[in-house]
Amino acid sequence: MAETKRDEAQSELYYKKERLKYSPEEEARLERQHFWRIIDAFRFYRAHVQEQIVRAERQFKSLSPHHQSLVPGVLSNLARISQCAEHNQKVLQAIIQNSLHMFENVEYYSEREDDPGKVRPSSTFDMDKLKSTIKQFVRDWSEVGQAERDSCYRPIIEEVQRLFPCDEYDVSKVSVLVPGAGLGRLAWEIAQLGYTCQGNEWSFFMLFSSNFVLNRCEKRLPDNSDFSMVAGDFVEVYTEPESWDCVATCFFIDTAHNVLEYLEKIWKILKPGGAWINLGPLLYHFENMANELSIELCYEDIRAAMVKLGFIVEVEKESMQTTYTENDRSMLRYVYDCVFFVARKPSGMHFKNQSDDQQQSLPPAAKSPRQEDADRFT
Amino acid sequence: MAETKRDEAQSELYYKKERLKYSPEEEARLERQHFWRIIDAFRFYRAHVQEQIVRAERQFKSLSPHHQSLVPGVLSNLARISQCAEHNQKVLQAIIQNSLHMFENVEYYSEREDDPGKVRPSSTFDMDKLKSTIKQFVRDWSEVGQAERDSCYRPIIEEVQRLFPCDEYDVSKVSVLVPGAGLGRLAWEIAQLGYTCQGNEWSFFMLFSSNFVLNRCEKRLPDNSDFSMVAGDFVEVYTEPESWDCVATCFFIDTAHNVLEYLEKIWKILKPGGAWINLGPLLYHFENMANELSIELCYEDIRAAMVKLGFIVEVEKESMQTTYTENDRSMLRYVYDCVFFVARKPSGMHFKNQSDDQQQSLPPAAKSPRQEDADRFT
Repeated sequence: MAETKRDEAQSELYYKKERLKYSPEEEARLERQHFWRIIDAFRFYRAHVQEQIVRAERQFKSLSPHHQSLVPGVLSNLARISQCAEHNQKVLQAIIQNSLHMFENVEYYSEREDDPGKVRPSSTFDMDKLKSTIKQFVRDWSEVGQAERDSCYRPIIEEVQRLFPCDEYDVSKVSVLVPGAGLGRLAWEIAQLGYTCQGNEWSFFMLFSSNFVLNRCEKRLPDNSDFSMVAGDFVEVYTEPESWDCVATCFFIDTAHNVLEYLEKIWKILKPGGAWINLGPLLYHFENMANELSIELCYEDIRAAMVKLGFIVEVEKESMQTTYTENDRSMLRYVYDCVFFVARKPSGMHFKNQSDDQQQSLPPAAKSPRQEDADRFT
Repeated sequence: MAETKRDEAQSELYYKKERLKYSPEEEARLERQHFWRIIDAFRFYRAHVQEQIVRAERQFKSLSPHHQSLVPGVLSNLARISQCAEHNQKVLQAIIQNSLHMFENVEYYSEREDDPGKVRPSSTFDMDKLKSTIKQFVRDWSEVGQAERDSCYRPIIEEVQRLFPCDEYDVSKVSVLVPGAGLGRLAWEIAQLGYTCQGNEWSFFMLFSSNFVLNRCEKRLPDNSDFSMVAGDFVEVYTEPESWDCVATCFFIDTAHNVLEYLEKIWKILKPGGAWINLGPLLYHFENMANELSIELCYEDIRAAMVKLGFIVEVEKESMQTTYTENDRSMLRYVYDCVFFVARKPSGMHFKNQSDDQQQSLPPAAKSPRQEDADRFT
């Protein structure tokens, strides 16, 4: 793959947009339309919040003077929310400014389509996505998010270090792929430890935002670090077999239309002896969405399919409780009961065939110092 | 109020439907329409689940034979879900049968409107309500729900017993109102202890279901118990001032369009010396609903308004974590960070006027053995 690596710590992080292979003209048109829809969503945020504030003010003022006098702080609180939205909008404008030419191999920008002064209304769906993106900044890049990162990213990072320890490996030669990289913190942390790490992300909301935050990161990566981000659909982008030592997925596999595609893809792109580390729930993103394929498998089914593909499950914890973009001032908390596992693609000469369980010979295994106890959990 | 009480343990529990006072003909027409809409929802459940199952089957069968072979248990699992829905539908039919003539003072039934063989499609909104109702059976009346009842109902029941202990009161003379009674378990438990207890509920989903479950309860109330359920909007139904010794609200106050109306109503209907016990979050039900008034106050504002009305907050815990219709097999849990408080309407001769904070004289206080330490927490 020819994506630009982040060779120098001070250099800009470039993004490569992998294109889908079918219907190129129509695909290009839809991509461009999608790009501008998300830019519009970033621009519409403040107006959207303001609509809600105006509604709340109007409703409050419709109360009797007696009721209004019982809660004198309401209007000043709404004014403060308005100020916060104003502040957030400034950050969003900076993100847009950064995003208009962010891909090194695709140019979506045209003066004809760009009108910074014009704010086009966005859908509730896109506004919800944008708000999730803002919360993701807290999770990935704020001090407040440290506890969540400790519960979600640390177990994954510790497994990377256990599987590929720096006293046994030249870790700069160990390649780790993070599909569903979001705002990039997990991939960044792995690169920070010296591993070659690539994040992959499909959502423009996340891509615009990670491009912004990664290039403004005060804590720089070491000079010799090898960190990259690739935009595009995981299943479409990664086609090279046996090219990764490790795939690390966090709150990712339930974003699939068909999670079995993800399993097969991860199996295919892992080198023999490579490992898949996963943490997350199974709350399928396309559940109940009209006209969308959504194959919703429970963990038992996924595990059985993994074993049929040939994976050896080395580490497995079925109930790791985590939160996701938690607001500790909210009276409702979402607690995710996650599965955590490490699954190995065996490096031995013989292992199960994917479809018929017959033994067959394969090329020699890649170096894997822990291969001798690979199946200790199975 | 003239609602029928449940004087004999073996008698049927009757429901009285309180009518709204404005626009009587239009109100009656809308009520009848609403009644039949909910009956239709109960009838549509199985067809609704079946639609989802057929979709999941169709999507699974669209996968490649290889993918299908990786997860051989999917179709039999869907068949089992179909059987479960079939079973649930039988219970729902029994609930409908019980509900057609359930109100002693209003008759919604007409042969013209009833066609048990015809299943009319319901909205997703109503199907979600129906599924919540089914989960409510688990919370209120199953062994699995015991832990939730212990976390939500027990603190309230313990406060009722602490405030009105049976060695100091003839508890059959202590009247407790439970607005938002749902499937009735909290009100039933309070009546079980000998208190006069009335549940109030607005939702036909809940009313049909509580009527069904309360009249089938294996554990009967004592013969001399005084337990009743009243249907209707809490704010409309209860107009008699100073008529209740205790109001107990659990996951209720955020169902208000204007929570200040609830506060004022509770203040008004409590006897001097009476107590309001509340547990629940503030996740306002009408938030983001178009064309619905929704005054969304934080607890600090609510507390300030309560104090302005004259309440004395005696017990207060700002963070009691509970769950609500939790499914322990789900990978997502909703944890509610609830406020719990006991607020007293003072029984003294002098207390704050609701609107202008001036002192004024009032009728003598009701007996309250604990009045001497009423403000120990404030």
